[in-house]
Amino acid sequence: MENIVMKKEIKKYKFGDWEEKEDILILETPLTIFFNDDEIVTLLCTPMYIEDLSVGFLAAEGFLKTPEDIDAVTGDYDKGIVWINGKTPPISSRKTFLKRFLTSGCGKGTTFYNFADTRILSVPVTNNLIKAETILEGAKKLQMHSSLFKETGGTHGALLIQDRNEICFREDIGRHNAVDKILGKCFRERISLSDKCLITTGRISSEILTKTAKMDIGILVSRSAPTSLAVELAEELGVTLVGFARGERMNVYTYPERIIK
Amino acid sequence: MENIVMKKEIKKYKFGDWEEKEDILILETPLTIFFNDDEIVTLLCTPMYIEDLSVGFLAAEGFLKTPEDIDAVTGDYDKGIVWINGKTPPISSRKTFLKRFLTSGCGKGTTFYNFADTRILSVPVTNNLIKAETILEGAKKLQMHSSLFKETGGTHGALLIQDRNEICFREDIGRHNAVDKILGKCFRERISLSDKCLITTGRISSEILTKTAKMDIGILVSRSAPTSLAVELAEELGVTLVGFARGERMNVYTYPERIIK
Repeated sequence: MENIVMKKEIKKYKFGDWEEKEDILILETPLTIFFNDDEIVTLLCTPMYIEDLSVGFLAAEGFLKTPEDIDAVTGDYDKGIVWINGKTPPISSRKTFLKRFLTSGCGKGTTFYNFADTRILSVPVTNNLIKAETILEGAKKLQMHSSLFKETGGTHGALLIQDRNEICFREDIGRHNAVDKILGKCFRERISLSDKCLITTGRISSEILTKTAKMDIGILVSRSAPTSLAVELAEELGVTLVGFARGERMNVYTYPERIIK
Repeated sequence: MENIVMKKEIKKYKFGDWEEKEDILILETPLTIFFNDDEIVTLLCTPMYIEDLSVGFLAAEGFLKTPEDIDAVTGDYDKGIVWINGKTPPISSRKTFLKRFLTSGCGKGTTFYNFADTRILSVPVTNNLIKAETILEGAKKLQMHSSLFKETGGTHGALLIQDRNEICFREDIGRHNAVDKILGKCFRERISLSDKCLITTGRISSEILTKTAKMDIGILVSRSAPTSLAVELAEELGVTLVGFARGERMNVYTYPERIIK
């Protein structure tokens, strides 16, 4: 834990008075991902599980198709660098990635990468069934596990479950990163995602929805809200999308038939 | 309001029972920003104030230096496009922007754009003083104004104040976008930011800190947590950084001398 939080002397204002206090901050550091000596991206993240984060990012972006595409993963926590060596991705994956961050220096492309992206996905993603109470129990476990959040207030958490079994829990300053860390671990360890349920503290935007659907997550749950576009994409891609899973309640936006009593 | 939220029939699970319910979702749509016919970026946002958002984004990224650099701003809400015409930005701005989303197709660069970026900033940003109670009052107003959040649970809000006067309030699915909408409005209307205080619901990461410091915000307040890197940069750039401003409390991470009783 010492490596991912930082102590800081601060001044606290409280009912009209000042006091000196020690506060605990969540670490944010840059992580640069190289793929076969090409610099792909620099993310800002909480420096834990940076190898899984990097693999998850590249897999969700289409650079890696199967675990066999990877020859080696080498992380340097001090320098904030991960090198991934493997099979060179097809040019189309790079193009799709580029479109998201298109600039005049890098050619032209269509504007809406998400829909272009999602056309290649198979529907439906899953035939998995899950009990409503299992989802709510998972959401409670996610909250219980979020120790960095309790300490710093600055993280998002994500928990992968299979029925009532917890498969993996991760935290990060970024809601995308917490999810990518789980996706990367499962990709590297060949853990199938189509029979799992992913629960996150973060809001569900179109990007999270697309990313997890691509990786075969068919039941996506959030303690927070989804956006309109996330719900539309969930409909289109065959994903069961659940929001506001808190206490004894949840909202099911798409494919409720997969959630049983 | 009808244009930025969407109604959706959902199933709600509540203490073991299902009910049909109408839910309200916040709109998320893609926005593509063109600058002099060059496609710069596609953001996902809540489609309000897209012209301000685009100008704020380009100004904070260094594409626009002064309002005089802009000849025309044209927004098309249906297509999700904003065209900005103006003085061609210096190549260095484009390079800095590129570094953040570096790919093998677009040349090489240093890994940590933030520090490279911040070196050009002047320190200190402000000599502005503000009363502690004014900040807490502002944080309460921010919460009161967040009507889209109350309706949908899916937005972040940002409020700009000058002493006890409210200058501008904006909401968006993205915490960056809500801030960019305010920055863009002020940039276009030549409203100085160095004597203002910006309050946001979102967590303060290094990116938000750098972006607002570049635009001369010297007092940055959040209802949530800052990250370690945001605090380090605030220290370096002369920004007063306040977190967890809720009710009668707040944590002051840097330069507390600007906050008076």
